[in-house]
Order: sequence, then structure tokens, then C-alpha cells
Amino acid sequence: MQKPFVFVNVAASLDGKISDEGRRQLRISCDEDLRIVDELRAESDAIMVGIGTVLADDPRLTVKSRELRKRRLEEGKDENPLRVVIDSRCRVPIDSKVLNDETKTLVAVSKAADEERVKRVSQRADVVVFGEKKVDLRRLLEYLFSKGVRKVMVEGGGTLISSLISGGLVDEMRVYFAPMVIGGAESPTICDGKSEIVKCRIEKIERVREGFAVFVKF
Amino acid sequence: MQKPFVFVNVAASLDGKISDEGRRQLRISCDEDLRIVDELRAESDAIMVGIGTVLADDPRLTVKSRELRKRRLEEGKDENPLRVVIDSRCRVPIDSKVLNDETKTLVAVSKAADEERVKRVSQRADVVVFGEKKVDLRRLLEYLFSKGVRKVMVEGGGTLISSLISGGLVDEMRVYFAPMVIGGAESPTICDGKSEIVKCRIEKIERVREGFAVFVKF
Repeated sequence: MQKPFVFVNVAASLDGKISDEGRRQLRISCDEDLRIVDELRAESDAIMVGIGTVLADDPRLTVKSRELRKRRLEEGKDENPLRVVIDSRCRVPIDSKVLNDETKTLVAVSKAADEERVKRVSQRADVVVFGEKKVDLRRLLEYLFSKGVRKVMVEGGGTLISSLISGGLVDEMRVYFAPMVIGGAESPTICDGKSEIVKCRIEKIERVREGFAVFVKF
Repeated sequence: MQKPFVFVNVAASLDGKISDEGRRQLRISCDEDLRIVDELRAESDAIMVGIGTVLADDPRLTVKSRELRKRRLEEGKDENPLRVVIDSRCRVPIDSKVLNDETKTLVAVSKAADEERVKRVSQRADVVVFGEKKVDLRRLLEYLFSKGVRKVMVEGGGTLISSLISGGLVDEMRVYFAPMVIGGAESPTICDGKSEIVKCRIEKIERVREGFAVFVKF
């Protein structure tokens, strides 16, 4: 199987939470981490998120720094990486920022997605169908590779990260840990879904202002 | 309020899990971490856990190293620290290792605890009553201080840790992160209960063999 390099980046509290039990959008990253994340985005060919993250946070998933966008153009790339939304049932709201015209978006759905919804979303994004009830992530990654995508940055949430790790599809992960505890038995975490122990290797730990980042390889 | 120094020690996966969704007892710590934990126990006056941890893991909560126990005796202390179980409804099974005769145990219950159960447990441990439905942790800590306890080491689980952090009762926390991801939206985490953001200061990060430990102050 030929697939792009898959890199997960996520910001969490020390207890592994990426939001609180109300799934509110919290400010977990610090400015310095956001600057690093912007650089990591600029170095990627595609930015991938799960539909849960789109519904909860409505992110734009574009490169914020004008300089980094300029550099991409100078390198002959699009100003922004391709945005990829994993959305088995095609629930992405038509007015989501991820469907704006800033850059190209690919919405990956399964055969369980409603036809009408797919038709509507197709007017604002490319829609691809992989898998019966859930998006077949392995086949999607093969497809992305065939389209020239060599580096995918995954920005969450915990359900997508869990599926990718369990499927053996993640090459590297960077977790920024903020100096805070969020708590909550119901709060979403870095890796949700079903539990399955997957070992990894800790490559590097870096202080990032008041927090720190851990780099692991699978 | 005069209370002992409260120190939380916990071992977790990189995604903040302390067990899997079946709450099975997993080997998260490495040998080197277990050695450090034994030293930390030996330096404490009391080891505190929640009833969930007793029911799931049946820990002995004693100092494993014969040398460390000897050192405690030479210092005029008991061979092992006092064991403290937070058990609002007095559910601790009478044959739990934490009730064996290796060392003294204090079971903290609330007024909601069944009288018969309390009577039975009283034959194997000191039972104290603080709080109406849940153990009033603040008053318990004051009581422990009045009995000469100056340093309490809390070893989990996530519900007790959450109550202590939310109550502003934790001075320091050490988290050992193992080189693994456990995943699971239902898996217990370092800090469960209700979510509430509590900021802290990261004091130190230390590599521990293949994993690492983070020390934070509240």
C-alpha cells in the first residue's frame, strides 16, 4: 500500500483532554504552539479532520501566516494545503468555514451518506465515497497518494485519531500538553473510539513556553 | 486550614488513560517507574486511593523494597505509610489486600454508608465519617494533619484526583507517561469526574527509560 506520511498534531491538557464535557472550543494551545502548528500546516499537502471537529469548532484549516502562504506559492504549491473532512454520513453544514472558497476541500463520505446532502456539498467541495458505513481510511489515503499528496497532517478529533492509530495508519504524532487539567469522565480525549493498546516510541520532548510538546513514532 | 502536603502520582498512556474501557489492570508503568513510585511511597506518611481503584486493582499499597521499609523503621516510623481509602458508601470488600494486617488502614466513609458494613470494616481498619453523601475531603485532610500526617501520596483513581484538584487540595502532581496509546472514549483518565479547567505550572520533565514523568504544581 502506498500512502502519504500521516502526521497527527493535537493540543491537550495534562490529563489528555482536547475539550471539556460540553465539547466547547477551549483555548488549549498557547500562541507559540499555534505558530508551530501554522508552520506544520504550511509544510503539509493536506490537513485532515473528522466531522466532529468541524461541527464543534468550525475551523478554517488554512495557513494563517501570510509569509508561509507566500512561501508555498513560491514553491509552486497552492497557497493552502488541501482540506480533507472525514464525514461518513455527509453531515458537514453547507456554511462551514471548511467549505469556503479559500482553498480546495475534499469531503470523504461512505455509501451510507444521504444522496441529497452529497449533491449539495458537491457544489462546494470534491466528494469521494470510500467504505460502506464508515469511511475506509486506508483506501482514502491510497487515493490521496495517487493524487500527489505526500504528507497529511491530522488535526483531530479523538475519534478519527483513534481509527487511524488502530488501523496502523499513523507515522508520527505530536502532542502539545498545556499546563492545565480539564477533567471530566465525558470530556473528549486525544484518542477516543474503542480502547486498544498501541505502543509507540517517544522521539523528543520540547518545552513550548509554559507547556511542552511530545513527538512519537508508531 | 492546616492540611498535609498532597502529592498525586499516576501512570498514564500518552492520551491520558489509566486503564482501558473494561477497567482492566494494565501494566502502564515500567520497572524504573515502579522503583521511583516505591521511593515516593516510602517518603510519605499516608497513601490515599479511591474505592474504585481498590475494587478494580485490589492493591496492597505497601512499600515493596525491604531496604526502604528498614529505613523507615530506623527513622522511627511505621514500616509502611498509613493506607487511606476514600469510600463514601463503605463498599470496600472485607478481603481486600488494603485491609490485610501488613499495616494500618483508615477507611473514610460518609454518613450515607451502611451501618452494618461500617461495623464489619471497623474490625480490620479505623473508620472515620466525614460528609453527608460523599466524603468531605477537606475535613478528612484536616483530620489526617491532626493525627500527624504531613505528606499524603494519592495514587488514584481519576474520580478522587478530580475531586481533590477541583477542591484546590492538591499541591503537586507527578504523571508518568508511558510510550503507548490506550484510546477509548469510555476509558478512565487521569482526571475524571466533572470537567473544570484548573491551571498548573510544569516544574520538571524527566525521561524515565522509554517513557517520561512530568512534575506540576498547583
